[in-house]
Amino acid sequence: MYDGHLDASWSIGAGINGGLLLAACANALSQTFADEAHPHPISISAYYLSAAEEGPASFTTEVLRRGRTMSTGSVSLTQDQEGEPVERVRALATYGDLTGLPDDVQTTAAEPELPDVGECLGSSLAPPDFRAAAPLLDRFDLRLDPDTVGWALGEPSGRGMIRGWLRMADGREPDPLSLLLAVDALPPLTFDLGLPGWAPTLELTAHVRAVPAPGWLKVVHSTRNYAGGLLEEDAEVWDSAGRLVAQSRQLARAPRR
Amino acid sequence: MYDGHLDASWSIGAGINGGLLLAACANALSQTFADEAHPHPISISAYYLSAAEEGPASFTTEVLRRGRTMSTGSVSLTQDQEGEPVERVRALATYGDLTGLPDDVQTTAAEPELPDVGECLGSSLAPPDFRAAAPLLDRFDLRLDPDTVGWALGEPSGRGMIRGWLRMADGREPDPLSLLLAVDALPPLTFDLGLPGWAPTLELTAHVRAVPAPGWLKVVHSTRNYAGGLLEEDAEVWDSAGRLVAQSRQLARAPRR
Repeated sequence: MYDGHLDASWSIGAGINGGLLLAACANALSQTFADEAHPHPISISAYYLSAAEEGPASFTTEVLRRGRTMSTGSVSLTQDQEGEPVERVRALATYGDLTGLPDDVQTTAAEPELPDVGECLGSSLAPPDFRAAAPLLDRFDLRLDPDTVGWALGEPSGRGMIRGWLRMADGREPDPLSLLLAVDALPPLTFDLGLPGWAPTLELTAHVRAVPAPGWLKVVHSTRNYAGGLLEEDAEVWDSAGRLVAQSRQLARAPRR
Repeated sequence: MYDGHLDASWSIGAGINGGLLLAACANALSQTFADEAHPHPISISAYYLSAAEEGPASFTTEVLRRGRTMSTGSVSLTQDQEGEPVERVRALATYGDLTGLPDDVQTTAAEPELPDVGECLGSSLAPPDFRAAAPLLDRFDLRLDPDTVGWALGEPSGRGMIRGWLRMADGREPDPLSLLLAVDALPPLTFDLGLPGWAPTLELTAHVRAVPAPGWLKVVHSTRNYAGGLLEEDAEVWDSAGRLVAQSRQLARAPRR
């Protein structure tokens, strides 16, 4: 069991960002598996059970399988609520050593072309009351492609796609754990569908495929299936060397109209 | 705890098909959640820990959260090996009632156009020795788009895409559980990349988005990121009414060259 603290600087609206919870769970398992040379999350699937809040948190890990090249574990994130532990997230994850994988790369996904960072729009341009409710924005240096921010001006494209450049605001270079932050760092796709409001994540699975090169990340969020009050949100993260370093998909509940 | 039996008719090569294991895990949780009006898997994530074999199997379920519209649980599939239980699969899943979801459908993914069923190629055309090693083939009536079977003739396209029509060989109409079979029923995408051999699944997450209409399903498997000895395989399942009823993504280990 590991003790941790969910900092208010990761909050968005009434809860803590799902990507931070994912990275925190992965960090707990990294400690479990680091001593057997499997330090990196390769696949992680998190089921969000209740809204996490600022404050102390406990991480209980379980080793399911120790293998030669990969190991798999489970992690439970709980917070005390009126003296009782309440589970916030349960996750399964497979760990390995990304630096030990073969060098072959035959990715057919096309790296997105984005305007230069200087031509993209930072979150410092967001309205002050919005920023006050989203301290998370200050954790990232996020520059959105102007072509995908019509929703901020009341003109959502309806395409269900938002993309931009991303790096940590504190200048830290990306690593496998921070890619788990990157996959849930952009505004909800529902904004681009004309649906403001909260789109809680039910499940999020991320695959980390390589140690990212230093520098800006390109992140593309898109959805292909908004139906029945639910939508899938896919994220692709490309590093500065043009490698597709992470892919994620989440199932989220669409905001009520 | 539920007892079950993994039938040899679901085997492929030396193991039991991953889709069958997924559906069997989901079936165990369906029994756990059915009495609270959440009978359908909406999202399920399975981590494959060791190769399952024909024979008895035990399913241990755990309820993580009971909610008003959805509930989440965990399930562990084990088999005895020399008197000791060995875990084959651990899965997390969220259940609900697909018939109770709102009617809105704004899917932007395009339904694939396939040649008529009669113009597609059945697995009865596969070589006898291949069929003997893959009893699974007889469980499904699978008709592959001739445009995506070059690999069977020694001419893999290299695109990483295989698609076709699918229904159960016994004539049973599709339902939410059988969609979990459908997402892992096609030949491995590695065949279309010119990589014969076994591509074991590390993790598979499926989202079931609607109760499928009766009739043939269209299934499309594709990959966008084959790198570092791993590949992601995406499946989309469309029902006869043209609805995208299931989406899945798995991370698999590429066959050794």
